[in-house]
Amino acid sequence: MTATPLTSTDLYLRVQHFYARQMQALDEGRFGEYAATFTGDGTFQHTPGTEPAVGPERIEAELHRFHERFRDDPVRRRHYFNQIVLDELPDGSVRSTVYALIVRVRPGDRVPEVWPSCVVHDILEVNDDRILLRSRVIGYDHLE
Amino acid sequence: MTATPLTSTDLYLRVQHFYARQMQALDEGRFGEYAATFTGDGTFQHTPGTEPAVGPERIEAELHRFHERFRDDPVRRRHYFNQIVLDELPDGSVRSTVYALIVRVRPGDRVPEVWPSCVVHDILEVNDDRILLRSRVIGYDHLE
Amino acid sequence: MTATPLTSTDLYLRVQHFYARQMQALDEGRFGEYAATFTGDGTFQHTPGTEPAVGPERIEAELHRFHERFRDDPVRRRHYFNQIVLDELPDGSVRSTVYALIVRVRPGDRVPEVWPSCVVHDILEVNDDRILLRSRVIGYDHLE
Repeated sequence: MTATPLTSTDLYLRVQHFYARQMQALDEGRFGEYAATFTGDGTFQHTPGTEPAVGPERIEAELHRFHERFRDDPVRRRHYFNQIVLDELPDGSVRSTVYALIVRVRPGDRVPEVWPSCVVHDILEVNDDRILLRSRVIGYDHLE
Repeated sequence: MTATPLTSTDLYLRVQHFYARQMQALDEGRFGEYAATFTGDGTFQHTPGTEPAVGPERIEAELHRFHERFRDDPVRRRHYFNQIVLDELPDGSVRSTVYALIVRVRPGDRVPEVWPSCVVHDILEVNDDRILLRSRVIGYDHLE
Repeated sequence: MTATPLTSTDLYLRVQHFYARQMQALDEGRFGEYAATFTGDGTFQHTPGTEPAVGPERIEAELHRFHERFRDDPVRRRHYFNQIVLDELPDGSVRSTVYALIVRVRPGDRVPEVWPSCVVHDILEVNDDRILLRSRVIGYDHLE
């Protein structure tokens, strides 16, 4: 699909705020709230080479499964997003390409671990009231 | 208080720019300019378990006192803010919840120290002309 | 020149988006696209004490020259920008002062190197259609 640069500044802001709420929800463990930012058939692929989870219900289940591994590890993660580029696609959806860096802190450790460095590839469905994710694919810089 | 999601995109931008000026002022040691971003009875608690400083004059004095410990340490700090979430409160003020990561550099050390990872909890008083801080409380991820 | 705080929120957003496209282009090695964000006589000084490159053609050549040193080093860089402060100058141009932190990843190394910490000093030429850089000077915190 041919993409055209986005001109609506208003949308640019709405996307920033959408991401802020979404990632604070994820980092605070509110997986249902995170999953609800996807469309009914929205897809989420957080690890290359795996099948994406489809739909909010499965995305939420996948997040619970993924975080099982941290059950005995009280790590807190903060997702930093930066340099959001938006392009409108011919079908009216919006492609978003964003840098993401994850900051990890464990209780008592003042200095966080900062990894990995990612690029988030989103397709957004936007209407006047809300933004939803049609798909999210995470690319990892150390795997490319 | 019940909070409602903020819809004004204009305000979202103004808050971003407010933070940018405020934190560049702090990082450059312009403590008076930082303190002047608080209301007359604004409160600033930068360390958990301590009494907050109240009002611009005391906030400025507190910043000078705090930086005394760095008198012989030429560290430069840069505050990175990210993922700003705004919610309107019933009294018209705005609650802002923001990630903050501090980057510290000493002369000659190319690689900065990156710590700590924080969440900033602000209450903002907004009118057409300006934004002021009614209160700021810093949470530290490694202490929670 | 006396600077006045910028009031147009719309411009603040446009500058954010401009930076996002520009730095994604640089990080992906699209040096021509990066160079084209400068005016015909735009200047780019990426290293203190060196002569700035003047005009898109020389800026692009300088970027190719600079990256020669990484020919055998498959490092990927991501430029994180934060805390953008904009001020209008009397001649209608816009001064932009921005924090920048560079994240560096090599294949297989999950944990990135994070350095250096910089402040970007830009003069922007803005009209209704586009933003261009009249000048960019990079300051490095560890050299000051």
